[in-house]
Amino acid sequence: MNTDINQSLAIIKRGADELLVESELVEKFKKGKPLRIKAGFDPTAPDLHLGHTVLINKLRQFQDLGHQVLFLIGDFTGMIGDPTGKSATRPPLTKEQVAENAESYAEQVFKILDKDKTEVVFNSSWLTDLGAAGMLKLSASLTVARMLERDDFSKRFKSNQPIAIHEFMYPLLQGYDSVALEADVELGGTDQKFNLLMGRELQKQAGMEQQCVLTMPLLEGLDGVNKMSKSLGNYIGIDEAPEVIFAKLMSVSDDLMWRYIELLSFESLETIAEWKSVVGAGENPRNIKVRFAQEIVARFHSQAAAEKALQDFQTRAKGGIPDDVPELEVTIEEESIGIAQLLKQIGLVESTSEAMRAIKQGGVKLDSVKVEDRNLQLSKGMTVVAQVGKRKFAKVTLS
Amino acid sequence: MNTDINQSLAIIKRGADELLVESELVEKFKKGKPLRIKAGFDPTAPDLHLGHTVLINKLRQFQDLGHQVLFLIGDFTGMIGDPTGKSATRPPLTKEQVAENAESYAEQVFKILDKDKTEVVFNSSWLTDLGAAGMLKLSASLTVARMLERDDFSKRFKSNQPIAIHEFMYPLLQGYDSVALEADVELGGTDQKFNLLMGRELQKQAGMEQQCVLTMPLLEGLDGVNKMSKSLGNYIGIDEAPEVIFAKLMSVSDDLMWRYIELLSFESLETIAEWKSVVGAGENPRNIKVRFAQEIVARFHSQAAAEKALQDFQTRAKGGIPDDVPELEVTIEEESIGIAQLLKQIGLVESTSEAMRAIKQGGVKLDSVKVEDRNLQLSKGMTVVAQVGKRKFAKVTLS
Repeated sequence: MNTDINQSLAIIKRGADELLVESELVEKFKKGKPLRIKAGFDPTAPDLHLGHTVLINKLRQFQDLGHQVLFLIGDFTGMIGDPTGKSATRPPLTKEQVAENAESYAEQVFKILDKDKTEVVFNSSWLTDLGAAGMLKLSASLTVARMLERDDFSKRFKSNQPIAIHEFMYPLLQGYDSVALEADVELGGTDQKFNLLMGRELQKQAGMEQQCVLTMPLLEGLDGVNKMSKSLGNYIGIDEAPEVIFAKLMSVSDDLMWRYIELLSFESLETIAEWKSVVGAGENPRNIKVRFAQEIVARFHSQAAAEKALQDFQTRAKGGIPDDVPELEVTIEEESIGIAQLLKQIGLVESTSEAMRAIKQGGVKLDSVKVEDRNLQLSKGMTVVAQVGKRKFAKVTLS
Repeated sequence: MNTDINQSLAIIKRGADELLVESELVEKFKKGKPLRIKAGFDPTAPDLHLGHTVLINKLRQFQDLGHQVLFLIGDFTGMIGDPTGKSATRPPLTKEQVAENAESYAEQVFKILDKDKTEVVFNSSWLTDLGAAGMLKLSASLTVARMLERDDFSKRFKSNQPIAIHEFMYPLLQGYDSVALEADVELGGTDQKFNLLMGRELQKQAGMEQQCVLTMPLLEGLDGVNKMSKSLGNYIGIDEAPEVIFAKLMSVSDDLMWRYIELLSFESLETIAEWKSVVGAGENPRNIKVRFAQEIVARFHSQAAAEKALQDFQTRAKGGIPDDVPELEVTIEEESIGIAQLLKQIGLVESTSEAMRAIKQGGVKLDSVKVEDRNLQLSKGMTVVAQVGKRKFAKVTLS
């Protein structure tokens, strides 16, 4: 147990969006006992990317301070699927699928979390016991008007978009999970604030000490603009190959790098302050980026893999790309631009069809990595070295 | 089975407020099979008055046409009580209390219903099986906006009065009862229309044939103005003594008499038309009232009791009250007037304190029945023979 409360608070608040209520958390810390830190996860097949790990990292920080993590898999609603039957993408999960997904979660999250201080729990185990009567009682805990205060409900209600009544139950169930688990703190994304507060409300109604609520920001993707997400293609998956993670991290802008470091690095706040100061004094941010990218690769693979990824990266950089590559800035209208269009625009090819041919023949590289997908989109904000054939290079920044 | 569909329809529609959807009921009748007629009752201790019997009579009419009644006792929510814990008047009922109350219902309703064509059912038997998951699915059946279309919800929502979320569940549970029972028709008061339609909605969602909905008007009490209710004192309990039921029915106004006959008598529509015609031709409506009052007393006691009540009434009328009682009309400001105030106003006593003394000594009668309660209120619209001591009489109409 870390007993320095100010230090603990600084660690917990690092990168966080909001802590409710700080004075209550201080009181909980003062008891000197391990706190019960709850976070809920979707029971569908997990495929975690760095965006997800912002919250998991925070759980790890709680563990490093001596606290217990309750890794909650929300299988109860998952096993119901979409009760309106309208969404083909939310079919009900079987018990076996839930168990498999939990296994897959475990494999991934224990790259970050301390197994000995983690309890994986399934909310079906207490929510099923609620029964129909318990569910009815639970639904008496809140008024319709209070529920409609939730941002998205309020917007949908005002614009006459349907809200099915069971949607009102989900926040209540999430709140009840906190009662059942006797959670001291619950973590979630900023978009979860209403649901997290429901835990406080229901614990209060149950005569319990209320949990604190800690919201974490949603991590921007590689484009620096949108939330990191698989469907937007702007993500770094924690199961990706070491050299892919390394290269993707090396490609982020210098500004975004500091954001990533704040939310993803385990280096101390002092160390990071030191880094900022040396960069301020003229050091190339690229050197910091290398160090940070190595930390992340080591976390999800190994120290050896991290070193190898760096060597590969440097070899490719040295071997392939000349020192005097011309630097260009290209202003694009949309959020992204197709690779063929870009190559034409910067004059590395005469036409998009020439670009397509070159890609097909394996003659196009970005940051020394061969481009396989001729429909590849490059997002605004990126800086990348494009190469066609052996001799044509350009370092492009998309703005 | 009565197979004359037009006749059946006429009987079913008699006195009813609304039938949805008539053409569907015709189709159901055409099948020539007993229909399943559902009506729900509160599981709290029943103490039925004639107001309640309007609906029960209609059930009986269905039975006389050959159909099966599902007498549903809503014990599921009764055993939960008030989930908000705010209402001391709605404590949860135990299984034993529910069973006792059901017994008491049976004693009372089988004075009207045919036991052989009645199935007493308890919704806890299928709602408990729903479980928490089934409850969640059920709550997905409707949107918040649709639920807020219900009159009382809409009013409360607009005027910022709280609606707890579980209140949204009750109509859904009532609708689900219709699914579980495969009801063909559901009966309820006019104030139940929204909930009754929920059965149609959920049966449709379940791919079943939809039930028809029949709403019955709320019976006015003895005052002819307010809904009959024990708390307003304007009721006739079905367990009251024969002479009390008889005298109370004899006291209703001639207009209200026809309303009561329409909703409470089992005489055929032809007979009633005949009665109206003879009264139109000059016959004293009192004679019709006597016949009707006898029918009702016979229903809840026996033919013998009905005859005895009539004899007593006539004896009292002959023995006690002279033929030449002065007739007065008294206009009152409020809906009712206290007995002492009235006696003073019509000059049978000098002061209200004299009236109080006379009541205490047993010297005040109304329609030959001794007044025990000195705070008795008489409602606008009543006609009654008041008597103080042996010689002072007045026939008063309150307007």
